[in-house]
Amino acid sequence: MTASYYDKLCRTWQRLYHYSHAASILGWDRNAMMPPKGNTARAAAEAELQGLMHRVRTDPKLADELRAAESESLTDIERANLREMRRDWREANALPESLVQAKSLAGAECEHAWRAQRAANDWPGFLENFREVVRLSREEATLLAADSGLSRYDALMDRYEPGVRSADIDRIFGDVKQWLPQLITRVQAKQRDEPVIAPAGPFPVARQRAMNLAIMQKLGFDFDSGRLDESAHPFSGGVPEDVRLTTRYREDDFVQSLMGTIHETGHARFEQNLPREWLGLAIGRARSYGLHESQSLSFEMQLARGRAFTDLLAPLLRQHFGDQPAFAPDNFHRVLTRVKPGFIRVNADEVTYPAHIILRYEIERALVEGDIEPDDIPALWDEKMQTLLGLDTRGNFKDGCLQDVHWSDGSFGYFPSYTLGAMYAAQWFAAMRGATPDLDARIATGDFTPVFDWLKTRVWSQACRWETPELVRRASGEALNPAHFRKHLETRYL
Amino acid sequence: MTASYYDKLCRTWQRLYHYSHAASILGWDRNAMMPPKGNTARAAAEAELQGLMHRVRTDPKLADELRAAESESLTDIERANLREMRRDWREANALPESLVQAKSLAGAECEHAWRAQRAANDWPGFLENFREVVRLSREEATLLAADSGLSRYDALMDRYEPGVRSADIDRIFGDVKQWLPQLITRVQAKQRDEPVIAPAGPFPVARQRAMNLAIMQKLGFDFDSGRLDESAHPFSGGVPEDVRLTTRYREDDFVQSLMGTIHETGHARFEQNLPREWLGLAIGRARSYGLHESQSLSFEMQLARGRAFTDLLAPLLRQHFGDQPAFAPDNFHRVLTRVKPGFIRVNADEVTYPAHIILRYEIERALVEGDIEPDDIPALWDEKMQTLLGLDTRGNFKDGCLQDVHWSDGSFGYFPSYTLGAMYAAQWFAAMRGATPDLDARIATGDFTPVFDWLKTRVWSQACRWETPELVRRASGEALNPAHFRKHLETRYL
Repeated sequence: MTASYYDKLCRTWQRLYHYSHAASILGWDRNAMMPPKGNTARAAAEAELQGLMHRVRTDPKLADELRAAESESLTDIERANLREMRRDWREANALPESLVQAKSLAGAECEHAWRAQRAANDWPGFLENFREVVRLSREEATLLAADSGLSRYDALMDRYEPGVRSADIDRIFGDVKQWLPQLITRVQAKQRDEPVIAPAGPFPVARQRAMNLAIMQKLGFDFDSGRLDESAHPFSGGVPEDVRLTTRYREDDFVQSLMGTIHETGHARFEQNLPREWLGLAIGRARSYGLHESQSLSFEMQLARGRAFTDLLAPLLRQHFGDQPAFAPDNFHRVLTRVKPGFIRVNADEVTYPAHIILRYEIERALVEGDIEPDDIPALWDEKMQTLLGLDTRGNFKDGCLQDVHWSDGSFGYFPSYTLGAMYAAQWFAAMRGATPDLDARIATGDFTPVFDWLKTRVWSQACRWETPELVRRASGEALNPAHFRKHLETRYL
Repeated sequence: MTASYYDKLCRTWQRLYHYSHAASILGWDRNAMMPPKGNTARAAAEAELQGLMHRVRTDPKLADELRAAESESLTDIERANLREMRRDWREANALPESLVQAKSLAGAECEHAWRAQRAANDWPGFLENFREVVRLSREEATLLAADSGLSRYDALMDRYEPGVRSADIDRIFGDVKQWLPQLITRVQAKQRDEPVIAPAGPFPVARQRAMNLAIMQKLGFDFDSGRLDESAHPFSGGVPEDVRLTTRYREDDFVQSLMGTIHETGHARFEQNLPREWLGLAIGRARSYGLHESQSLSFEMQLARGRAFTDLLAPLLRQHFGDQPAFAPDNFHRVLTRVKPGFIRVNADEVTYPAHIILRYEIERALVEGDIEPDDIPALWDEKMQTLLGLDTRGNFKDGCLQDVHWSDGSFGYFPSYTLGAMYAAQWFAAMRGATPDLDARIATGDFTPVFDWLKTRVWSQACRWETPELVRRASGEALNPAHFRKHLETRYL
């Protein structure tokens, strides 16, 4: 028997899937391919698409269809899919199309200008566009909050981490702030006496690219369903059928690009392994940004910066860059696990990384809630960098509050996902080691099957089948438990 | 005073402009970037966008708005814009959305499969998809013909060459068929005794690319508004604000890629110089495919294969590929003007090129009109290649009826535009030489101002301001006159 309202809804979401395919490829192209003068027309086209998708999601007939579908006879899967459609619908209906388009447009323009402004350390120039982005984001947050009963910041964060609240984050980050500074100090003291030989460049871009492609291959990336290109700010974009990764190269340092590529490959394998039969359905997407990040960090931090993996890296490094003492596995592992407080989040080691996130979380929450204004950011940034990492960033906007792309297009509420992801990843590997005691020995031989099978069965294939706490419990046998992350850091670094 | 219905219409066309921006970039990406397994999802997304644009163009309220706008007080420009909107509207309303989507989908799939099938000489495999493309194209032609009162083929051709009929083409091509075979014979006889030194490869792809970028720069391509990439079938795509050119490289022969790039640069400069204030309006587009081709052929054939241009090429060739006897201007000009009947249209010299077009025109017209079936194509192809160029293509589908992309996605009615373009280009240069008697001397010094100024003033800036015959008359002082093309060939080759 046909569940007709449910089917109608699925057809509408299928249309949305096609439109968002277009939007994703346009976004990838804007960042990886588009020449500068293309930006105004592109921003207008992307805003038009956002407006269109918004109109589809707010079509008045959907309210009736969603209600009617609830009383149809549905399988569990269909019911989960209906739940996800309702979530999309509710979020969209809280916002008027004019705001969605205005924000898309202002975000695209601010982000585009940011690329040059960051390089020029031009905070005042950035502020001119950014004030409007903040104004529109607050308007958005206010409307979403009114609809959901959440606080303004929580209403934004809910789009990236459904169900996670700032009370949770405060608790988790509050705990981290207790032990992190001391851990950083201890690790630095320990590493002070460990000799480490830095790789000696230059490393030509073409060879770095070949090395990156080789490692992607080893990590199971499907090149018939994706590409690796370059962009100023590396990301994983595109669509599940065609994942577009980017990286950036510096000839004096291949490690950044290599580790960045491994990171994005984790995102990519999640997308490439979402259940094919669910693609185009609301249930067929990755559950949350934190879970997505748990995949990139499983690949980069848990797997690739582990001691076992460096045994595999050594011959590849020698093949692509020639032999040098730095590539000896013990030494290269020290290169990959060196802890050093620094200005730049994306270059941070996994021990200091949470500090970068806590800082951003505290600032963006205050900004969205209206407790501070955009003009206040640099001073707060300086203060928190001083407290958390002992670094002075005064006047250095480029390596301070201008370094990230996220705020430029109004993606407030996203940053906590990074550290949630790191915590999930540690939890996954703890569970994997429980199930496969010789995990590291097998990784050292190049056998990643236990890792990929575990992730595929418990995360990739689950898409939006379960709400996050249920997914986490089913995957690892317990709720999110940040103790695994702390333990992982202490085991690896002390 | 606001002409309110006219303004409403403009806003609708603005939306269409944004959607077609998305469609253009997706199309470019599909051909230049997309990995193979991305195709099904891409085809679905592109078909969805085509369907969407069709729905916008067939919104019932447009009929009233178009009628009401007619009686508003409009400037001449606005009236021309209204004429173009009405043309779009009429064409769209002749076709149901289901057909538009089905054809987009079938075309994308057939085209995608064609890439591999061509390489594999797999005509039977191609036929399986192609029959459906033909069926849908005939349905489309029948509906367009019923609406316009034209024949089925003319109704399709009208989309590329508004106002041009097969009776015109029959007359023009009938004339060409009278003198072309004899001209080919005479030119070959003359060239038989002219020594020509072929460039000696290999020519590494990276150097060819650098050479192509250098020549694009000299020809005024704006790299802040466009790119050069690679694709199996070179084309000029993207949007006026961001033109995407492609080429393909063979290490044993740089001439194909160089001349192809110059050709596409002609298309690009037209797009990059369409009046900025009209972008997003129906009047702001290039008038026809034949006029577009007149620009690519003005660049490639009239300018770059002329004797004066080879003086400029020589130092660039030496700079990128090292010195060799073939690059001496007199010799290289002979390389660029060598006439030799061959299988492949896109590699054909400008003397034999019309034969390739006449063959395709005759076959596709019969196919659309239902006088022949897809299965009949190879035999007809063989027969006409034999008659027109004395070549045997039996069993060689790869270099025969499978060589072009056009039919695979149902772009029937397009081919005549190539030869119309060659004729317009010859007419433009005849007019330019009239206005600037020392044209070739100036070209030889690298001064292209008279060429670019003429084209910009008379073609690029005119967009859809005038219907084609009026544009041609205003540009060159007379209607399309194929005698200029014949004279150009006789002057250059005899």
